[in-house]
Amino acid sequence: MSTDTDGAPVRKVTLDDVHALCDRYRNWGRWGPDDQLGTLNHIEPEMIVAAAGLVRQGKVISCALPYDGNGPQNGWGGRVNPLHFMLQDGGDAAIGAQDHMARLRYADDAIYMPLQSGTQWDALSHVFYDGKMYNGYGQEHVSSTGAEKNAIHLMTEKVVGRGVLLDIPRHRGVPWLEPGQGIDSAELAACAESQGVTVGRGDFVLVRTGHMAMCREQGAWGGYAAGDAPGLTLDSAHWICGNEIAGVATDTWGMEVRPNELEEIFQPVHIVLLVSAGLLIGEIFDLEKLAEDCAGDGVYEFMFAAGPLPFTKAVGSPLNPMAIK
Amino acid sequence: MSTDTDGAPVRKVTLDDVHALCDRYRNWGRWGPDDQLGTLNHIEPEMIVAAAGLVRQGKVISCALPYDGNGPQNGWGGRVNPLHFMLQDGGDAAIGAQDHMARLRYADDAIYMPLQSGTQWDALSHVFYDGKMYNGYGQEHVSSTGAEKNAIHLMTEKVVGRGVLLDIPRHRGVPWLEPGQGIDSAELAACAESQGVTVGRGDFVLVRTGHMAMCREQGAWGGYAAGDAPGLTLDSAHWICGNEIAGVATDTWGMEVRPNELEEIFQPVHIVLLVSAGLLIGEIFDLEKLAEDCAGDGVYEFMFAAGPLPFTKAVGSPLNPMAIK
Amino acid sequence: MSTDTDGAPVRKVTLDDVHALCDRYRNWGRWGPDDQLGTLNHIEPEMIVAAAGLVRQGKVISCALPYDGNGPQNGWGGRVNPLHFMLQDGGDAAIGAQDHMARLRYADDAIYMPLQSGTQWDALSHVFYDGKMYNGYGQEHVSSTGAEKNAIHLMTEKVVGRGVLLDIPRHRGVPWLEPGQGIDSAELAACAESQGVTVGRGDFVLVRTGHMAMCREQGAWGGYAAGDAPGLTLDSAHWICGNEIAGVATDTWGMEVRPNELEEIFQPVHIVLLVSAGLLIGEIFDLEKLAEDCAGDGVYEFMFAAGPLPFTKAVGSPLNPMAIK
Amino acid sequence: MSTDTDGAPVRKVTLDDVHALCDRYRNWGRWGPDDQLGTLNHIEPEMIVAAAGLVRQGKVISCALPYDGNGPQNGWGGRVNPLHFMLQDGGDAAIGAQDHMARLRYADDAIYMPLQSGTQWDALSHVFYDGKMYNGYGQEHVSSTGAEKNAIHLMTEKVVGRGVLLDIPRHRGVPWLEPGQGIDSAELAACAESQGVTVGRGDFVLVRTGHMAMCREQGAWGGYAAGDAPGLTLDSAHWICGNEIAGVATDTWGMEVRPNELEEIFQPVHIVLLVSAGLLIGEIFDLEKLAEDCAGDGVYEFMFAAGPLPFTKAVGSPLNPMAIK
Repeated sequence: MSTDTDGAPVRKVTLDDVHALCDRYRNWGRWGPDDQLGTLNHIEPEMIVAAAGLVRQGKVISCALPYDGNGPQNGWGGRVNPLHFMLQDGGDAAIGAQDHMARLRYADDAIYMPLQSGTQWDALSHVFYDGKMYNGYGQEHVSSTGAEKNAIHLMTEKVVGRGVLLDIPRHRGVPWLEPGQGIDSAELAACAESQGVTVGRGDFVLVRTGHMAMCREQGAWGGYAAGDAPGLTLDSAHWICGNEIAGVATDTWGMEVRPNELEEIFQPVHIVLLVSAGLLIGEIFDLEKLAEDCAGDGVYEFMFAAGPLPFTKAVGSPLNPMAIK
Repeated sequence: MSTDTDGAPVRKVTLDDVHALCDRYRNWGRWGPDDQLGTLNHIEPEMIVAAAGLVRQGKVISCALPYDGNGPQNGWGGRVNPLHFMLQDGGDAAIGAQDHMARLRYADDAIYMPLQSGTQWDALSHVFYDGKMYNGYGQEHVSSTGAEKNAIHLMTEKVVGRGVLLDIPRHRGVPWLEPGQGIDSAELAACAESQGVTVGRGDFVLVRTGHMAMCREQGAWGGYAAGDAPGLTLDSAHWICGNEIAGVATDTWGMEVRPNELEEIFQPVHIVLLVSAGLLIGEIFDLEKLAEDCAGDGVYEFMFAAGPLPFTKAVGSPLNPMAIK
Repeated sequence: MSTDTDGAPVRKVTLDDVHALCDRYRNWGRWGPDDQLGTLNHIEPEMIVAAAGLVRQGKVISCALPYDGNGPQNGWGGRVNPLHFMLQDGGDAAIGAQDHMARLRYADDAIYMPLQSGTQWDALSHVFYDGKMYNGYGQEHVSSTGAEKNAIHLMTEKVVGRGVLLDIPRHRGVPWLEPGQGIDSAELAACAESQGVTVGRGDFVLVRTGHMAMCREQGAWGGYAAGDAPGLTLDSAHWICGNEIAGVATDTWGMEVRPNELEEIFQPVHIVLLVSAGLLIGEIFDLEKLAEDCAGDGVYEFMFAAGPLPFTKAVGSPLNPMAIK
Repeated sequence: MSTDTDGAPVRKVTLDDVHALCDRYRNWGRWGPDDQLGTLNHIEPEMIVAAAGLVRQGKVISCALPYDGNGPQNGWGGRVNPLHFMLQDGGDAAIGAQDHMARLRYADDAIYMPLQSGTQWDALSHVFYDGKMYNGYGQEHVSSTGAEKNAIHLMTEKVVGRGVLLDIPRHRGVPWLEPGQGIDSAELAACAESQGVTVGRGDFVLVRTGHMAMCREQGAWGGYAAGDAPGLTLDSAHWICGNEIAGVATDTWGMEVRPNELEEIFQPVHIVLLVSAGLLIGEIFDLEKLAEDCAGDGVYEFMFAAGPLPFTKAVGSPLNPMAIK
C-alpha cells in the first residue's frame, strides 16, 4: 500500500479507477491506426531546435548505470546482470595466440544481457493488457522472434528533445524516498515549480526518487530489482498525460510505486501510461550525478539525447541517455 | 595493394613509413601519463555549445545499422551477428504462462552480441602494437575479465560534439568506392572543400566510402566483414592528426583500406591512429541516410551525439550515433 | 518427392495416410495418462542386462559430432553452431591476471548452443500437432520458461539398452543415399537381415544414410541443415512401431526424408513417430566410425549408453551417445 | 585447516610436501610425450568388458545434477548457473507465429552455461602450475580460442569402465562431512574395506562427502560454490595414485578439502592429481541417489558410462554420468 507524501494511507484504488484512467488517457488511434510511436509524436522539430538551445555549458552527463556483473539484477524472470566475454585479449597476444597476424595484436569482446537488465527504455511492445498493446495491436504480434509491432528499433531517431529533471527527494528535503512511497501529480507539479522549471509538451521527464542513492548508501542492491520501491502513482498520470510529455524515466526498476496501489493489477501505472497512452518509459536510470549538477547550478532543464539502439524487433533497449547542458 | 583516386598504384609503403607516422603523431603523455581518453581531449566545452548551435531543423538521423541476424558478420574471430532472445512474449501471455501475474502481461528479451559486430566504437584498448596500447599501457591490462586501462566505459560522457560528413563517392562522382581504393589526406581536404565545410579541432568526421551502399545494391554482404574494402590510407593520418579531430568513423568494417598498403602489419592505420594517436575509431556506421540528407540540403555539419554505452571494461561498444541537424 | 530403393517414385502420400498412421501407432494412454516417457517404456531391466552382455571387446565408439563452430548449422530458426567462450585461459596466467591466486593457474570456459544444433535427442515436447504433443498434453505446457510436460530431463536415466546399427548405404552398395531418397519398412527389415542382426522391443536403432559422409566427401555441409536429405519414410513407421523399438537416430538433421512425402505437413514422420507414438528421435548422429567398425567385425549390435543431460524443462539435449562393444 | 577423521588438526602441510607429492606421482611422459589422456590410459579393454559384467539388475542411476537456474553457482569467476532460452515454443504455435509451416508446430531451445557450472569433468587443460599442464604442455596452448592440448573432446570415448562409490559419511556414521573435514588415504581404504569393495587400476572412484545432502537439508546452496567444503586431502594422493585409478569425482564444487591444507597453493590437490598425475577429476556429481541405492543392496561397484561431450578444445564438459548396475 503506497502512502502520500505525508505518509498517510491513500484512498484505496480500484480496478475501475485504473480503467477510467486508461479510458481518459488512451491515445489509440490519435496518431493514426498504424502509429507505433505513441507520445514521441508530441515532439516537433522546433522542440528539438529549442532543446539544443539549452546547451550553454558544453557539459554531458550520462544517466546510464554501468552494464556489468555488479548491476541490480537477481535473475528474476530471466533478468540476470550482463555477462561480458573477451573473445581475444592481451593474454592471447602475450602467449602467441595471435602470431598468425602481422604485428597488430588486438582485443575483442562480447556481451550477453537481458535488454531490461539495466538502464533501459521499454518499447511499447513491452506490456499487454487484455491481450492488447499500445494502439490496439494484439499480443500475438510479439512472438519468440520478436515484436512485429511497437518494437524499440522504430524509435531510434525519435528520442532527442528537451529533458527536465524532477528531484523529488530534494524537493521533500530527504535523502531518498522510501520503498512504498508514491509520487502523485500534485507533487510533480510542486517539485517543478520549486525547481523553477516548466514542463510541457514533448518533454522527457526524469523523476528522481533517490532509490539508487539508498542502495549505494546501503552498499547493496538488496531488493532493488523487482522489489518494493518508491515511484509514480496512478494519480501521476493526470500530470504526465495532461502535460503531453514524450517520455518519463526513473531511477527505479519499474517506474511506479511498489507495492502497487491495488492488487488486482501488477504494475498498473504501466497499463495506463505505456499500454493506453503509449508513453515511452525508462527505468534504472542513474540520476545521481545529474541531480548533483542541477542542484549545483539550479538549472533543471537540458538537451536530452537518448535514442535506443536499433535492436530489431526488440521490446526494450539499453542505451546511453545523455543530458547535455 | 591500394590505389590512389586515379586508380594508379601508390608508392610501396614500408614498415619504416608506418613507424615514422607513429612517431610523428604519437600522443602518449600529451594529456598526462594517466590519460585514457586520447583525442577526445581535443573537445572543449565551447565546442559542444557550438555544436548544439548547428541544430537548426530539429532533425535526427541515426548512423546505426540495425542489430540483428541480418548483419554483416560471418563468424570471423568469433564475430557473429547479434542473437536476439525473447525471455517472455505474447505467446506466453496467450497460453496462460503468465497467469500467476495479476492482469498485466508482458514481453522481455535479451541479446548476445560481439561488441564489434555492428555499428561500434573501438575502445583505445582494442589494438596493441609491440605489446602496448595508447599512452603506453601494456597489453597485460586487457585480460579475460576486460580492460583495466583504456576501456570504453570511460568515454560514456565524452562523445558529443560537432560532426562532419565527408561523402567521398559523391565527391568522386561514383556510387561507391571499390574495395581496395584508398582515401588519402589530399582527398579528405578536397572533399571537405567541395562540400563547403571546414574541419577542425575536436570534430568527429564520418567518412562515407559507399561500401555499405555497394553491398545493398548487390543484395548481400559478401565479403564486407573482414574482407577487402575501400578506406583510409596511411597518408590520411596527416590530415586526421593535423586537424586534431576527436574521432573518425566509416561505413566499412575496418576503417582503413583493404588489402592493406603493406603486408608487414595487419591494419596499419589502426596502429598509427588508434594506438599511437589515441584516436577514437568508429566502424560499420550506416552513413547512407545521412549522406542523402546532406546532399539534399548541402549542410554537411551537425551536432553529433554518439556516446558509447558504459559496458564496464569493454574494448568496444555498439551505440546509436545520432546526427542532429 | 521421395523414391523407393529402386529410384522409382512412390505412391503419392495423402494427409489421410498420415492420420491413419497416427491412429494406428498412437501410444497415448498406453502407459497411463501421466506418462512422459513414451517408447522408452519398452525397455525392461533385463534388456539392459542383456545389452551389457554385448560388451565383448571393451571398445567405446561415440556417435557425437564435435560441438563447435564448424558444425552444420546456418542460423535457420535461430539454430547457430555452438559458440565457445574462454572465461579464463593460459593467456591470463601469462600476463599476471591470476596473480591474486596462490600459485595455481587455470582455464575455465562456457558454451552457448541451441540444444538442437548438433548431435541431439528430441524431447517428446519438441513437436506439436493439432495443439497436442505426445500423450495428449497441450502445447500450452511449453512456454518461454520451458516444457512443463515431456521435457528431456525426465529421460536422463532411461536411455541405456541394446543398440543396433542399420547401415543402409552399405546394404545398398552405395557410398551414401542421395537427398530425397527414402528408407521404408521393407528396406529396414532387409538391411537388418543382410547384416545378420535382429531388432526387437526396447532396442535403439541407429539408421545410417551416409548423408554426413557425403558432406565430408564434398568438403562442406552445404544444405545439410534444414535442407534436402535422405531419411525415413512414413512407411518406415510400420517396422519401427511394429518392432516396438525404444528410439531411432539418424545421421541427418531431421531423421526423415526431405523433401517430405507430402506438402500438407512439414516433417510428417515426426508427427507419427514422436507425437503419436512417443518415440525418442535422435538427429545429427555421426555414425561413420561406428559403421566402419561394424563392417569390420560384422557385429551390428552393441550396448548403447546415450542418456541426455538433465537440462531442466528442455525440449532437446546434446549428448555423447556411446556404442560399447 | 583441515582435520583428520577424528577431528584432530593435521600436521601442517608445506609447499615442499606438495612438490614431493607432485614428483612422486608425476605421470608426464609415462604414456609418451604426446599423451593427452593421462590416467585414462590405465583402462584396458578387458576392464570395460568386466565392468559390463557388473550390470546385473538393469538399473541406471544418473549422477548429474539438473542443469538450470537453481544450480549452485553464484557468479564467481564468471560461473553463473545455466541460462535456458526457448527459441520457439507452444506460445508461438498458439498465436500463429508458426503458421508459415505446414501443420507441424514445434519448440526449440538453447543453453548458455559455463562448462564448470554443474556436474562436470575437468579437462587436463583446466589447471596449470609453473606455467605447465599435464604432460608438460605449456599454458600457452590454452588461449581465448580454446585448448590446443589436453582438451576435453579427446576423452569422448575414454570414460567408460568400472565405477566404485565410496560413501564416506555412511562409513563415518554421520549424515555428511562438515566443510573443512578432509578425507585421507587411510580413510578411503577403510571405507572401501567396510563396504566390501575393492578398488584397482582403471577404476572410476566416486567419493561421497554428503556436502550436497547438507545443502539440501539446509534448503540452500549457501557457500557451496567456491566456498568451504569437505574433500580429499593431499594425503589421499597416495591411495588414488597408488591404486592407479582412472578418475575421481566428488559431490563438491572442487573435489578437495576447503579451506586448503596450506595457503601457499590454491587447490593443491589439483596440482598433484590433475597437473602432475594427469588424473581425470569430476566435480558437482550428485551422488545421493546412488548412495541410497548402494546402501540398499550393498553393492558399491557398477558399470560407469560417463563420457564427456565433444566440446572442441574445451577445458571441461557437463555430462550425464551413468552408474549402471
